[in-house]
Amino acid sequence: MKKVMLIILDGLGDRPHPSLKYLTPLQAAEIPNMDLMASKGLLGMQYPIAPGVPPGSDTGHLSLFGYNLDEEYPGRGIFEALGEGITLRDGVAFRANFATVSERNGELIVEDRRAGRISGEDAEVLASEISRMSLLRGEVEAEFVHTLEHRGFLILRGDGLSSQVTDVDPHEVGYPVLEPLPIEEEAMKTARALKEFLIRSHEILKGHEVNRRRVKEGKPPANFILPRGASKPVNLERFGDRWGFKPAAVAAGPMYKGIARALGFEVHHPEGATGLPDSDFRGKIREALDLLGEFDFVYVHMKGTDVASHKKDPKLKVEVLERIDEALEQITDPPEDLLVVITGDHATPCLLGKHSGDPVPILFFGKGLPRDDASNFHELDASLGGAGWFLGGDLMKLILNYSDRSLEYGLRPLPRRRWYIPRREELTPLRI
Amino acid sequence: MKKVMLIILDGLGDRPHPSLKYLTPLQAAEIPNMDLMASKGLLGMQYPIAPGVPPGSDTGHLSLFGYNLDEEYPGRGIFEALGEGITLRDGVAFRANFATVSERNGELIVEDRRAGRISGEDAEVLASEISRMSLLRGEVEAEFVHTLEHRGFLILRGDGLSSQVTDVDPHEVGYPVLEPLPIEEEAMKTARALKEFLIRSHEILKGHEVNRRRVKEGKPPANFILPRGASKPVNLERFGDRWGFKPAAVAAGPMYKGIARALGFEVHHPEGATGLPDSDFRGKIREALDLLGEFDFVYVHMKGTDVASHKKDPKLKVEVLERIDEALEQITDPPEDLLVVITGDHATPCLLGKHSGDPVPILFFGKGLPRDDASNFHELDASLGGAGWFLGGDLMKLILNYSDRSLEYGLRPLPRRRWYIPRREELTPLRI
Repeated sequence: MKKVMLIILDGLGDRPHPSLKYLTPLQAAEIPNMDLMASKGLLGMQYPIAPGVPPGSDTGHLSLFGYNLDEEYPGRGIFEALGEGITLRDGVAFRANFATVSERNGELIVEDRRAGRISGEDAEVLASEISRMSLLRGEVEAEFVHTLEHRGFLILRGDGLSSQVTDVDPHEVGYPVLEPLPIEEEAMKTARALKEFLIRSHEILKGHEVNRRRVKEGKPPANFILPRGASKPVNLERFGDRWGFKPAAVAAGPMYKGIARALGFEVHHPEGATGLPDSDFRGKIREALDLLGEFDFVYVHMKGTDVASHKKDPKLKVEVLERIDEALEQITDPPEDLLVVITGDHATPCLLGKHSGDPVPILFFGKGLPRDDASNFHELDASLGGAGWFLGGDLMKLILNYSDRSLEYGLRPLPRRRWYIPRREELTPLRI
Repeated sequence: MKKVMLIILDGLGDRPHPSLKYLTPLQAAEIPNMDLMASKGLLGMQYPIAPGVPPGSDTGHLSLFGYNLDEEYPGRGIFEALGEGITLRDGVAFRANFATVSERNGELIVEDRRAGRISGEDAEVLASEISRMSLLRGEVEAEFVHTLEHRGFLILRGDGLSSQVTDVDPHEVGYPVLEPLPIEEEAMKTARALKEFLIRSHEILKGHEVNRRRVKEGKPPANFILPRGASKPVNLERFGDRWGFKPAAVAAGPMYKGIARALGFEVHHPEGATGLPDSDFRGKIREALDLLGEFDFVYVHMKGTDVASHKKDPKLKVEVLERIDEALEQITDPPEDLLVVITGDHATPCLLGKHSGDPVPILFFGKGLPRDDASNFHELDASLGGAGWFLGGDLMKLILNYSDRSLEYGLRPLPRRRWYIPRREELTPLRI
C-alpha cells in the first residue's frame, strides 16, 4: 500500500495563447521536474465534473475528492464560512459581500462587487447596523457576520427555510442586482425574507454617514449586501471514512481550507503560504512531506496558477509554474511507498480569464505504475497518455488502484459498501 | 450481420515488470498473430467495471456481458455452485472452503484458507459430520456440500433468509475470521444462523479424529468452514434474450462455466482444456470455430494468463500468451461474417499478484471494421487505438455495432426495449 500526495494546481489547464507563440503556459514553461515525472510516470486527461462543464473552486474539488455533486453539494456558503473559521450549525447561509450599487430606472446596477475592498472601522460600523434584523414580521431572523475586508456571511434562521434560492450577486459589474428566486416551492419564504433583507439593509446603508463620508473621499460606498451561494449546514461523509485514508491538507486560501475542514482533513497552513503567486511553494511541499509521516493522504493546494489566469497573464502563469516546478524537485525521487498525483481542479485559460470546461492534465508518479510514451507535462502529451481520459469523479478510485488499496468488486468484508481494502480495526472478528 | 467470437484472456492487462526490462507481458511476448490482428483491426482500452475498480472473476465477466452489477449481481456463490454442476433452487448459498484456523485471544486467526488443499477421504469424512445441521432451534436448516479438494458450498434454508450478509472469509491469511454482519435488517436472522453454524461446525471439526491425525502427520487441520459470496438463486435474463444471440461457451474453469450456464450459454469443455497454463488453447479455438456453425456468439475463456499473474510470474505469462497466440493462428484469416473480439475480464499485474483496477486492452478484428494506426496488441498501442476508452458495460453494444446487429435508437419494433435488430420470429405481424 502506498501513501498519496495529491497536488492541485488551481486552474491548471489552459489553451494556446498568442503572447506565448500559441503555446499553453504548461508548454511554454521550463518545468524539468514535472517533465521528469511525466516521462517516468503516467499521464492522462480528466474532466473534473463533466466534459465542457466549468467547475467552481468548490465543486471542482468536491468532485475530485469523490463526492457526488448532484446529491451531496450543499452550496458554497458553508465552505467559505468554514474557511474563515465559522462553523454554521443552523439556518441558511450565504456568502455576502459589501458592494457598491447605483439606481438606474428602478434597477440596482452593480458598480463594484467589493465596495472598493472596504475594510477596518468603516466595514465594522456598517456591519453593526445590519447585524441583526427581524424579517417577515418576526418569522425569520437575519444575522450578518462580517469577516475580512468586504467579506461576510448572511444567515437566515426560522422554520421552513430552504437553500434553494438563486444568487442575488450577478457576478458581473454593470449588471443589475438580481431578485432572489425560489428554485423549489419550499423556498418561497426564504426568497421573500432575503428580498426584505436586501431592501431594508440597502435603505440603512445607502444613507449612512460612513458612506456619505466615503463618497466625499472618492471611495465607493458600501451601500449593498450582495449574497450568493446559499447553503444549508450538512454533514458530508468524512473523506477518511469514504476512502480509507487519514488525510491532511496543506493550503492557504480560505475556501480550500474550508472544504478540507468540511471533509475532515487536518488543515495545515505553513508560514509563507499566501494563496497567491508569491507563495512559498517549496515550504508547502516540505510541509506535505513532513505530514506523510503521520498521514497517508496529503492534499496540497497551490492557488497561484489560477490567480495568474484570472488576471489574463499567461507570462505570470508560466513564472508561477516554473516556481512550483522548482519546489517539486523535492519529490522527483520519491520514497518507494509514495504515489504522487498532480492535476488541477479546473482549467482557467488565460485567454478567457475565467474557469472553463476544458479537460485538465493529470500525472500519476510512483514506483510500479503503468507507463506510457508521453514525456512532457502539458495538455498535448497528457491527451495521449496511458491513463486515458476520465471523469474527476473517478479520480479517487484510480488513486486507490494505483496506491494498491482497492477492494475487489464483489467482496464484502463490511456491511457498508466500500471501495478500499478495510483497515484491520474496521473489521469485526468472530468471537467464540 | 456477423457472428461473434469473444475471447477472454483472464487477467490480461498488466504493468511494466523489472524482470521483463520494464515491459508488460504483452509487450515482451512474441505474438505475431495478435499483432497481425491488431494492425488490421481496431484497438482500444476498457475498464471492465469502472476506472480503478478491480473486478472479481465473476463481476468482471458479468459486466462485460452487459449485466448491471448494482442491480443484477446475485453474489458469487450461485455461479461457483453452477460451475460444479449444482443448481441452487432455494435458500442462501455460500462458497465455503475447508480452512485452518487457530485461536488467539478469543479470535480465530486464518492460518490456511484451504486447509492444505485437503482432499479425498479426509475431506469426505469431515464433510459428512457437518453435512446437515438444524440451526436457530429448527428455524433454519443448513446443508454443507463438499465438491473438490477443499471446496464446498453451504446452503441455508428457512423463512426470511437474505443474502445480504458480509463475508466470513477475510481473504487474507493472518487475519481473523470475520463475524457475519447483516447488510440490511432483513438479514439479521441469516447472520445469526450462519454464526451458529460456524461455531458448531468448528466444535465438531476441531476435535475430530481426522484432524487429530492430520496434525500428527504435520498437515493443517481442516477445523473451520470459511463462507463467502452469499447469494440467492435468481433468474438473470438470458444472454441470448438480452442481446439477440444464440450463445455458446468454451471454458474449463468451473466459475466461468457457472456464469455461462447461469446466463443460458451452451457450455462446452473440450478435452485437454484445463483452466491452467498448460491448457490446450488450440483445441479451444478449434472447438469455438466448430460451434460457430450452430451458434452466432461463442465466448472462449482462457485462464492461463491469470494463473501466471497470480503466481507473480511474468515469464510464465509471456509463455502462456505465446502459446495462446499460436492457437489464434486459426482465426487470423477469418470468414467474411466473423467478428473476433479479444480482451480480458480484468488486469492482474504480475507485480501485484492480484486483480487491479487498471484498464484492459481490447481488439476488434473482422472485415469492414474501422481501423487505426495501432499495430501491436499491448497496453501502450491499445491506449491510443481507434476504439478509444470505454467501460466494460458498453462492450455488448459495441459488439452489436461491429457485428451489424444494432437497432437504431428510437426505433421500437418490440414492446420491450432492445438494443439489437430483432429476429424475424420475435416480431408480431399484423393479421388481417
